[in-house]
Amino acid sequence: MNSVFSVQKSQLIVELYNIGAVKFGEFKLKSGITSPIYLDLRQIISYPSILRTVSECLWELVCHSQFDLICGIPYTALPIATSISLQHNIPMIMRRKEKKSYGTQQQIEGAFKHGQTCLLIEDVITSGGSVSETADDLENNGLIVKEIAVLIDREQGGKKNLEARHYTVHAALTLTDILTSLLNSGILPKAEHTIVQQLLHEYLT
Amino acid sequence: MNSVFSVQKSQLIVELYNIGAVKFGEFKLKSGITSPIYLDLRQIISYPSILRTVSECLWELVCHSQFDLICGIPYTALPIATSISLQHNIPMIMRRKEKKSYGTQQQIEGAFKHGQTCLLIEDVITSGGSVSETADDLENNGLIVKEIAVLIDREQGGKKNLEARHYTVHAALTLTDILTSLLNSGILPKAEHTIVQQLLHEYLT
Repeated sequence: MNSVFSVQKSQLIVELYNIGAVKFGEFKLKSGITSPIYLDLRQIISYPSILRTVSECLWELVCHSQFDLICGIPYTALPIATSISLQHNIPMIMRRKEKKSYGTQQQIEGAFKHGQTCLLIEDVITSGGSVSETADDLENNGLIVKEIAVLIDREQGGKKNLEARHYTVHAALTLTDILTSLLNSGILPKAEHTIVQQLLHEYLT
Repeated sequence: MNSVFSVQKSQLIVELYNIGAVKFGEFKLKSGITSPIYLDLRQIISYPSILRTVSECLWELVCHSQFDLICGIPYTALPIATSISLQHNIPMIMRRKEKKSYGTQQQIEGAFKHGQTCLLIEDVITSGGSVSETADDLENNGLIVKEIAVLIDREQGGKKNLEARHYTVHAALTLTDILTSLLNSGILPKAEHTIVQQLLHEYLT
């Protein structure tokens, strides 16, 4: 964690824990493996003030960058991208996961032109797979992807994978930030405190 | 169309047409049939000021109603619901179309309690099927649905179907409003003017 880790970020981490967006226990992940930590960022949709804080944390990372459009990756990053779009008047586009067979049959929704630059927004990156897929589709549609803003980097290779594709990845928080901050906050019940200590040991060694 | 049809709504209709959210021509719909009109409200995500206007039009319809939560129906109504949530500090929930097999395995995302009342937000209703499905799921999860706010009622039975289920449906615009307003605006090319005249004739007789 940076020595100048902001109070705003520490407060955000505690708020995310308090609303159940960061959970410790035993969770079955998409890959089938069991994890002692589960990030359920969808919870933030029920807390407009937290959604605003998350959006502003991401905005601070990219406000000096150049881009024409933003694209949130469904579902959780959609409200985050919407919040940034509304707050800073930036046109948004959306990528559907599957092609429609009817109507105008577009996979990228919204208005865009060949050669425009698009910022990608994601809530959590693990391997970076969803981000890569989205970037592929945008690039196949003539858009340019240079930067990706994520709320949480799980530090499981995603950043490196995306950087290998020459993208710049801005992460507001890492999993280490979250674990360290919660450990220091003194709010964890004993059982969870033990899980987090163990996780941090694994991450830092 | 109401005689007191607001200038704001007339302007919104012209803006929706100008950004391609209302199209005339030949379009294959979800049902397989071909329609001379296609409503592609997803376009609004690329125009933050229009998204704000749409959200405010819906808000005006329900600002005196009582509800604890709002739920936008994916995809287009998600940014509309997000905008209302952020602007008026109302907790949002989301309904996934399919159950996840991993993680916390919830179909309704976000924080909610048994007995809370939820306002549904939709961009366009045709038969009201998507709204009904969402309402079923929310009710199966202990939530109470009373009111539905939609931007456009296609006047193809959706309102009646939903009212038969004892829901109150508030529509900011009807398809007749849109056709009449565009016909009077003088901005339609000749071919489209003819299509719209014919459509209105079918709708009004």
